Amino acid sequence: MMMIDKLINRIKSTENPTVVGLDPNQDFIPKFIMERVVAKYGWTLKAMGKAILIFNKMIIDEIYDLVPAVKPQIAMYERYGISGLKAYVKTIEYAKKKGLIVIGDIKRSDIASTGQAYSDGHIGRAKVGLSEFEVFKEDFITLNPYLGSDSITPFINDCKSYGKGLFVLAKTSNPNSGEIQDLLIGDVPLYEKVGELISKWGEELIGENGFSEVGAVVGATHPEQAKRLREVMPHTFFLVPGYGAQGGKAEDLAVCFNKDGLGAIVNSSRGIIAAYKKEQYKDKFTEEEFAKASRQAVIDMKNDLRRCL
Amino acid sequence: MMMIDKLINRIKSTENPTVVGLDPNQDFIPKFIMERVVAKYGWTLKAMGKAILIFNKMIIDEIYDLVPAVKPQIAMYERYGISGLKAYVKTIEYAKKKGLIVIGDIKRSDIASTGQAYSDGHIGRAKVGLSEFEVFKEDFITLNPYLGSDSITPFINDCKSYGKGLFVLAKTSNPNSGEIQDLLIGDVPLYEKVGELISKWGEELIGENGFSEVGAVVGATHPEQAKRLREVMPHTFFLVPGYGAQGGKAEDLAVCFNKDGLGAIVNSSRGIIAAYKKEQYKDKFTEEEFAKASRQAVIDMKNDLRRCL
Repeated sequence: MMMIDKLINRIKSTENPTVVGLDPNQDFIPKFIMERVVAKYGWTLKAMGKAILIFNKMIIDEIYDLVPAVKPQIAMYERYGISGLKAYVKTIEYAKKKGLIVIGDIKRSDIASTGQAYSDGHIGRAKVGLSEFEVFKEDFITLNPYLGSDSITPFINDCKSYGKGLFVLAKTSNPNSGEIQDLLIGDVPLYEKVGELISKWGEELIGENGFSEVGAVVGATHPEQAKRLREVMPHTFFLVPGYGAQGGKAEDLAVCFNKDGLGAIVNSSRGIIAAYKKEQYKDKFTEEEFAKASRQAVIDMKNDLRRCL
Repeated sequence: MMMIDKLINRIKSTENPTVVGLDPNQDFIPKFIMERVVAKYGWTLKAMGKAILIFNKMIIDEIYDLVPAVKPQIAMYERYGISGLKAYVKTIEYAKKKGLIVIGDIKRSDIASTGQAYSDGHIGRAKVGLSEFEVFKEDFITLNPYLGSDSITPFINDCKSYGKGLFVLAKTSNPNSGEIQDLLIGDVPLYEKVGELISKWGEELIGENGFSEVGAVVGATHPEQAKRLREVMPHTFFLVPGYGAQGGKAEDLAVCFNKDGLGAIVNSSRGIIAAYKKEQYKDKFTEEEFAKASRQAVIDMKNDLRRCL
């Protein structure tokens, strides 16, 4: 089965188009976890890698039955070097074992043979002699489109070969995203031109639910623009960042979805993984119960989204 | 001293504006190296990581006195996961010990706190409690501009704090680079608009040679466009890929330089690291002498560039 259909099936079975962003940050990791790893490894990169993995596993244990997917942001792991990236690999393995679909938020991009190297490592196979290895093992990855079609082709080929999916940046959720992405090409903003390319890249990879393996990242903080993109990209599934902490509201997200409630998956990172620090959950959950607070935050987000879709 | 000045000083002392792209690929690694690592580790990712490091060290030993810098392309290491990334880290450490400046070709890009995480790991410091760590330790890194100013700010701040430099993609060397980068904003192509942004991002970081810590990637395969960018970005140093294997000729590169011969550094990857496989060097060097072929290729490239500059 195509990966986009696996994702859609899980969205249907959980009745929840939410993806939990596993973006661990030292400030989010409860003291009892840090104390445990520091006792063993000191204040080291290795300790952080271990802490991140414990933190992620405890969250995954509480949310795997409620959401279709998780999205680890590789930067948060790469920051800690080899130790952090080991936690990235093990987080992916653990999430997949629990039945979750994993979207690796890697935003990679490079030309021809270099793009192929990224693809080999993340969604394809790395060859050593005649042996082949799955390395990072994400189900989907995010890509940056600035280099054009030949930078995307190696990934598309591996999607075909290995049943994987992509989300390519169209319109990002950050305040300065418009600086380049909103520049007008004639009457059409760049992000829409990029949307057209993404749509074209995905043409040959449309699954049984009518959506392509090649999706688009479309920020929740720009509802008018998301609405327009939804119209011009009917077969493109959206990965929507920016809900919650970045200011995107559920009301604004409705435009990313079709009438049948499909068409997008909405990410929340710190709103869920650091829920125990929020006013709303602080009194109900102790720091030791941080993962239960995350569970409650997922349920509340699900209800918030259902109210508007 | 600012990193861009260290680079320029080394370009002056070596009289060579060449950067050697350390983009190891299984096809480039001589059999005697593969046999040695496979005997110990089998056909594994670990074996590849070890082979890459041996290969890189042997090349560095032959070229460190001739060139100012090396540019490892992280994708070629990331492909092999943790084992490959360990080789990336050790390659950087070894090159720096030999006095080379290291440009990490990582083309990362992400928003605010995520951009900061990449910056912490590559050019800044990763914090664990009150301890701080230098992780990947590159001197320069490459970045993708598509997300706009706030995605670049964390890196610029770390350049200020830690004396590091950046090369941001303006115009890449691949065949489809124009698909997005050449789109016209009014009369001005996007890559030039991006060039203006890069120039602005670097304004506060201009060193004693008149160039900024914030440089630009400008492909050698587009001389007309490079010429125009050289005019509109007088304080921006260029990292120029595409020479040699990708078709960029020395004649075409002159436009990237100022009259004093400064202004750019030209990358060659497989033309140097896989020189022993080229017709030109095959008869003069055995596979065991591959690193000596690389040395000769560096000398030949230096002469080729000097002929035209």
